[in-house]
Amino acid sequence: MVLKSFVEVEPESHFPLENLPYGVFKTDEPGSLPRPGVAIGNYVLDLSAIASAGLLNGPLLSNSDCFNQPNLNKFVGLGRPAWKEARATLQKLLSATEPTLRDNADLRPLALLPMDKVQMLLPVAIGDYTDFFSSMHHAKNCGTIFRGPENPVNRNWFHLPIAYHGRTSSIVISGTDIIRPRGQGPPTGNAAPYFGPSRKLDFELEMAAVVGPGNELGMMVDVNEAANHIFGLVLMNDWSARDIQAWEYVPLGPFLGKSFGTTISPWIVTLDALEPFACEAPKQNPSPSSYLVEKTSRNYDISLEVLIKPSGQADSCVVTRSNFNHLYWTITQQLAHHTINGCNLRPGDLFGTGTISGPEPESYGCLLELTWNGQKPLSLGGTTRTFLEDGDEVTFYGYCQGNGYKVGFGSCSGKIVPSPL
Amino acid sequence: MVLKSFVEVEPESHFPLENLPYGVFKTDEPGSLPRPGVAIGNYVLDLSAIASAGLLNGPLLSNSDCFNQPNLNKFVGLGRPAWKEARATLQKLLSATEPTLRDNADLRPLALLPMDKVQMLLPVAIGDYTDFFSSMHHAKNCGTIFRGPENPVNRNWFHLPIAYHGRTSSIVISGTDIIRPRGQGPPTGNAAPYFGPSRKLDFELEMAAVVGPGNELGMMVDVNEAANHIFGLVLMNDWSARDIQAWEYVPLGPFLGKSFGTTISPWIVTLDALEPFACEAPKQNPSPSSYLVEKTSRNYDISLEVLIKPSGQADSCVVTRSNFNHLYWTITQQLAHHTINGCNLRPGDLFGTGTISGPEPESYGCLLELTWNGQKPLSLGGTTRTFLEDGDEVTFYGYCQGNGYKVGFGSCSGKIVPSPL
Repeated sequence: MVLKSFVEVEPESHFPLENLPYGVFKTDEPGSLPRPGVAIGNYVLDLSAIASAGLLNGPLLSNSDCFNQPNLNKFVGLGRPAWKEARATLQKLLSATEPTLRDNADLRPLALLPMDKVQMLLPVAIGDYTDFFSSMHHAKNCGTIFRGPENPVNRNWFHLPIAYHGRTSSIVISGTDIIRPRGQGPPTGNAAPYFGPSRKLDFELEMAAVVGPGNELGMMVDVNEAANHIFGLVLMNDWSARDIQAWEYVPLGPFLGKSFGTTISPWIVTLDALEPFACEAPKQNPSPSSYLVEKTSRNYDISLEVLIKPSGQADSCVVTRSNFNHLYWTITQQLAHHTINGCNLRPGDLFGTGTISGPEPESYGCLLELTWNGQKPLSLGGTTRTFLEDGDEVTFYGYCQGNGYKVGFGSCSGKIVPSPL
Repeated sequence: MVLKSFVEVEPESHFPLENLPYGVFKTDEPGSLPRPGVAIGNYVLDLSAIASAGLLNGPLLSNSDCFNQPNLNKFVGLGRPAWKEARATLQKLLSATEPTLRDNADLRPLALLPMDKVQMLLPVAIGDYTDFFSSMHHAKNCGTIFRGPENPVNRNWFHLPIAYHGRTSSIVISGTDIIRPRGQGPPTGNAAPYFGPSRKLDFELEMAAVVGPGNELGMMVDVNEAANHIFGLVLMNDWSARDIQAWEYVPLGPFLGKSFGTTISPWIVTLDALEPFACEAPKQNPSPSSYLVEKTSRNYDISLEVLIKPSGQADSCVVTRSNFNHLYWTITQQLAHHTINGCNLRPGDLFGTGTISGPEPESYGCLLELTWNGQKPLSLGGTTRTFLEDGDEVTFYGYCQGNGYKVGFGSCSGKIVPSPL
């Protein structure tokens, strides 16, 4: 049964009453402060206004200032009981049959703002960002491209969710231009390394988990409790300069090939909203260490699409169709693994999944795989690409298809602009 | 000539008037707030008290609240002119001939607190932490141990300062216990990987630079301007679990083998205080890319020592004597390289140097090198070690030797405690 709100929600909208994703926005009024909101149809519900009006009246939230904050860190740190209370309160408040907000002619225009009149900001202050490498298809393709088809995937990959620490300062919100990075690329023969604007600029189709309550330094999180430490998911583009990455990454991993920019979508879709779309995760063989064995091992059925709008062209082309359920390691395994050594997580930390590639070439999650490192140019409605050119715009979409509604993530996009001289 | 303060400074003190390093402390009074201070002899000068008394009266600092903060981020973000003004003001205020504070019987006991009565805290809120790999001797030794004596150092190492992103949440202040991490280690043959408390726990002798003013995303910092973006240096112990690291690090670099804890010393010694100890950096061959070529390429002559106090023993043993000037890549080259792709730095970011090993075995900066991966146990006054055992305490010291005085870093220490069950 489709839930009905008094706010109009079109059938194709990503933001029906079943979703209610959280973000942070400001308006274009001078002095407008960043504050949390929830998406409903083409509107943003201003949670600071709702809280100030006393409408978040459950026992856990009625005395909290978590929505009078410039980010969602305090709210996500409160944990699942508070998240469930907020969801229940807001679903009721926005429902078609509930008059409290619907019929309040003073509050309604203050609290419900047209989405096209607000500017979305980073939803959380990210203390640490970790990027995993959890799609086997992606690992296999990259290994084959760089090291050949024998043993493309290292043995360790099947025993633990491989990851690296990423750069938090350069995480930006969807819509921010991405400046083509400069750097060193691999030398040819005995020549000096190439230096200049990257010649192999790529996107990576990822999603990212936002950490809720953290853990104390030295204490691990049990894998069967890990879901209580995850608030929700966003789309993420882990822009990558393949030439810079190839030259720098041995032996300490990716660094400047990634740290010039990482884009996330503005709306955090909660695990509670994703629950109806949970599905079984792939069977793992070999069976992992005991601390990674889950009573219930779940993925989510989230359809993902990548579109490229080539520079100077009017239309976008779909280049990839993938799904979150292609991940081999679950986000709960990632979180348990991250803390097994005692590493402390904090509310608002971000975990990237790694590039989400499926088994078929049409589902590969980056140009490195789609063009097989530039050997097979991609046809894009009248033009071709091996890697991204200046002016190209890359957009990700993601959604779960319900019966008569979608629970969606909106979009995650960025346009490449030239390197500075 | 040795500068003279009205505060007693013993000849061997690390904190004479020539030094004036910055830290953040609180007292043991209930409700005591973290606030910035400067070390002088065995005292801490409370900068919030000095600022409130109107004694930081230069044009840049008189109207600033940078010392009424729980960390030094705001002050370090102000840049070199403000740092120089603070240094000049404080050197005058603390000098033997200046009566303002010396003869103020009300203010003096409030502003000058015995160092053993305060608790030191992390001096900055660290947004991002990057660890470099800048000692050639360390790179050569690790390469030889893991890959054999032919080509122990990858070709890329000589062209760019290799680095990886580290974990900021687990950076702790000197004196914090380090909990032995658990994790997976390399399997033997076809068996499952080892899982349990790390069997190869190590220290790494490093120093770290604290970033001052940052840069905008997309804009690089010129290598000849980079020193203006570095506030000062601390000692750093990059604790490492060699078995966890060995199994996980291919292909994305170190992760849980490092992220269980990183210890820094509490006092940031400014580049201005280190200036008399500047020395020429090693000649680089091959010559690096133009963006890494410096007009003046400088290291600092900082003597470094590592002591281990084995569990249950009364005395510490010196296991390493090294020097900051063994670094091949300078901290200014590190900073320019970090931004060449447009990556933005923020005030308070931390750059580790990587393990500082010298050419002789007595100067190796970690047990991996000192015991050649456990093959040559180290003699420690009646006992031996290959790697660290529970109860072992590791302490670093660092200082510059002036003519009749030392500019020192104090100590950086941590004790290993057992893994939780």
